[in-house]
Amino acid sequence: MARLETFADGVFAIAATLLVLDVRVLDHWASYVAYAVSFMTIGIMWLNHHQLMAQIARVDRRFMVANLGLLMCIAFVPFPTRLLAEDLGHEGARDAALAYGFTLTITAIFFSIVWFYAAHGGRLLRDDCDPRVVAGITRSYLPGIPMYLTATLVAFASPWASAVLYLVIAAVYIFESSLFGGAVAAD
Amino acid sequence: MARLETFADGVFAIAATLLVLDVRVLDHWASYVAYAVSFMTIGIMWLNHHQLMAQIARVDRRFMVANLGLLMCIAFVPFPTRLLAEDLGHEGARDAALAYGFTLTITAIFFSIVWFYAAHGGRLLRDDCDPRVVAGITRSYLPGIPMYLTATLVAFASPWASAVLYLVIAAVYIFESSLFGGAVAAD
Amino acid sequence: MARLETFADGVFAIAATLLVLDVRVLDHWASYVAYAVSFMTIGIMWLNHHQLMAQIARVDRRFMVANLGLLMCIAFVPFPTRLLAEDLGHEGARDAALAYGFTLTITAIFFSIVWFYAAHGGRLLRDDCDPRVVAGITRSYLPGIPMYLTATLVAFASPWASAVLYLVIAAVYIFESSLFGGAVAAD
Amino acid sequence: MARLETFADGVFAIAATLLVLDVRVLDHWASYVAYAVSFMTIGIMWLNHHQLMAQIARVDRRFMVANLGLLMCIAFVPFPTRLLAEDLGHEGARDAALAYGFTLTITAIFFSIVWFYAAHGGRLLRDDCDPRVVAGITRSYLPGIPMYLTATLVAFASPWASAVLYLVIAAVYIFESSLFGGAVAAD
Repeated sequence: MARLETFADGVFAIAATLLVLDVRVLDHWASYVAYAVSFMTIGIMWLNHHQLMAQIARVDRRFMVANLGLLMCIAFVPFPTRLLAEDLGHEGARDAALAYGFTLTITAIFFSIVWFYAAHGGRLLRDDCDPRVVAGITRSYLPGIPMYLTATLVAFASPWASAVLYLVIAAVYIFESSLFGGAVAAD
Repeated sequence: MARLETFADGVFAIAATLLVLDVRVLDHWASYVAYAVSFMTIGIMWLNHHQLMAQIARVDRRFMVANLGLLMCIAFVPFPTRLLAEDLGHEGARDAALAYGFTLTITAIFFSIVWFYAAHGGRLLRDDCDPRVVAGITRSYLPGIPMYLTATLVAFASPWASAVLYLVIAAVYIFESSLFGGAVAAD
Repeated sequence: MARLETFADGVFAIAATLLVLDVRVLDHWASYVAYAVSFMTIGIMWLNHHQLMAQIARVDRRFMVANLGLLMCIAFVPFPTRLLAEDLGHEGARDAALAYGFTLTITAIFFSIVWFYAAHGGRLLRDDCDPRVVAGITRSYLPGIPMYLTATLVAFASPWASAVLYLVIAAVYIFESSLFGGAVAAD
Repeated sequence: MARLETFADGVFAIAATLLVLDVRVLDHWASYVAYAVSFMTIGIMWLNHHQLMAQIARVDRRFMVANLGLLMCIAFVPFPTRLLAEDLGHEGARDAALAYGFTLTITAIFFSIVWFYAAHGGRLLRDDCDPRVVAGITRSYLPGIPMYLTATLVAFASPWASAVLYLVIAAVYIFESSLFGGAVAAD
């Protein structure tokens, strides 16, 4: 598990840091907003992955393969982010908004696969897990897929509305993380 | 050994995450398939490296140099992946398929060198290694070289057939990893 | 906390190492100076983050979100660094110097937010913290914001003077770090 | 010290893996040789840094700043490597060979600074250090600077001879590391 976390932390850190390679032109405010939103989105995902792994006592190969699928999505985020920053307001805005949204939706699906595989019947959970924390994680994962899917489908009507929704979802996650100020185990 | 693993995890994570830099154009489906196949291929290699290192009790300089050679191959994978995604169906498809195949074949050779150097006479293995796990790793390493070499040579007849074989080999590895659902030590 | 540090170390290491991607042309001395100054600036920030975390006993979600904001700034540094190396002495020098300065000023603000949130009433500090070390960190964080803000505002008068001030601030931090030769806990 | 090693491992792993970004054209054999030589050179440097850190019991700020200088050089290696692969045999070959050589010479100087600062009077060494290992590291560091400096100066006469010498020095280090097959502490 230690190495799974080192590898995962590496992918999260690299995906987040690579985002800066796509900030290209000064006065191109869209690329700053895209950078900040995507960095914080990947960062909050890292926080959630951290919290998820804190409940896990053991891993098996299926869990690790599902986790690779999740990391494959997260490492992909810089690509649709660049598209969205480049194309919003130009030709291709719809495709870019769809690409961003589908990437985040599939990422949310993989987060659920990883978590429900581990939590089903307590398969991989620690024996001393707090059931309220487990239920809290389950509850917090449920709205992710429909929220991102809705924002994605809105792109067919308006790429701008879709982009604003992505921003709102990111802001909600950051705000919720900041509110929930409970102490995290010092591991 | 801790630092060998941190360094190796870093190379695996960076090589996998750099793949996204080569996903360039929307609607270019080949680059998505290439990204997914290569990310999962590097990910499964990371899983195998993880399993290999779990059997190792001590390392020497020769082992570390062989391991550097292995990491040199893995860090190289993004280059032939980009070639294959760009050139399949165009001029240069054969060279791209050969470059991808030779890279993966040489990677498989280095995996075998690292493992058989460590396992020969139990040189670097833990005293409490499960002999069935050791035999299982040995058995699972044998088909890698001929499989990738065959797929590489097929490129002389048809780059497309070769690319499909790479995809099949990756799928087999992912499927096999998912089936073999035994619990991994919690280290 | 271990994973927060792995993630943070990854972002620091990647941001520092990505700087080399922007060193492009031989005989372009400005890009060498920019590389060295920015690498050492990110390196000293890493040292300070290291020293900060050594005082922390536990973390909460708010601390982690503030820390993500700090890392978002640090991962952004390669962008204004490239601008400054490219544009100093050309059109756009003022904007580049402003971008560099505002990035470093906001980074200093986030450093203060992270530290004062953790240290306020000893909220997240270790019980056995040396009060002189805590007071020393507090004291060393105070001049960062006004120093970088002053150097930034100087860019309105002269981008060159501003760039020289950034260099002087970096040199002061390196010199101060080298002077303060006390042993660091071996953790 | 744990975080110093995580940060250092990150810089080594990223610098080595970034080298692949500069492998650009198929059939451009110089870029393959440059990739392999530079990856193994950075890898052997990582091995030496690993061995150096294994003798260290405690660190101070001066040691950490010197270590940042060393990492600054190592993270710079991909730049002159790209120059050398691109320009050897073309105009600019001499400048490229000089840039590569000076980078490696300065890296060797920083390695010596870090080691002799730590080892002088046993300042930062473990109490139970094997004096033969300490003397062996000291001895192995002495030839690095004159070897790289000589190969660099040869570039004034012939860039090709200089490049061959860089290759020979790398081969010697790899060969020497492989011969010296003593078991490394399992840390």
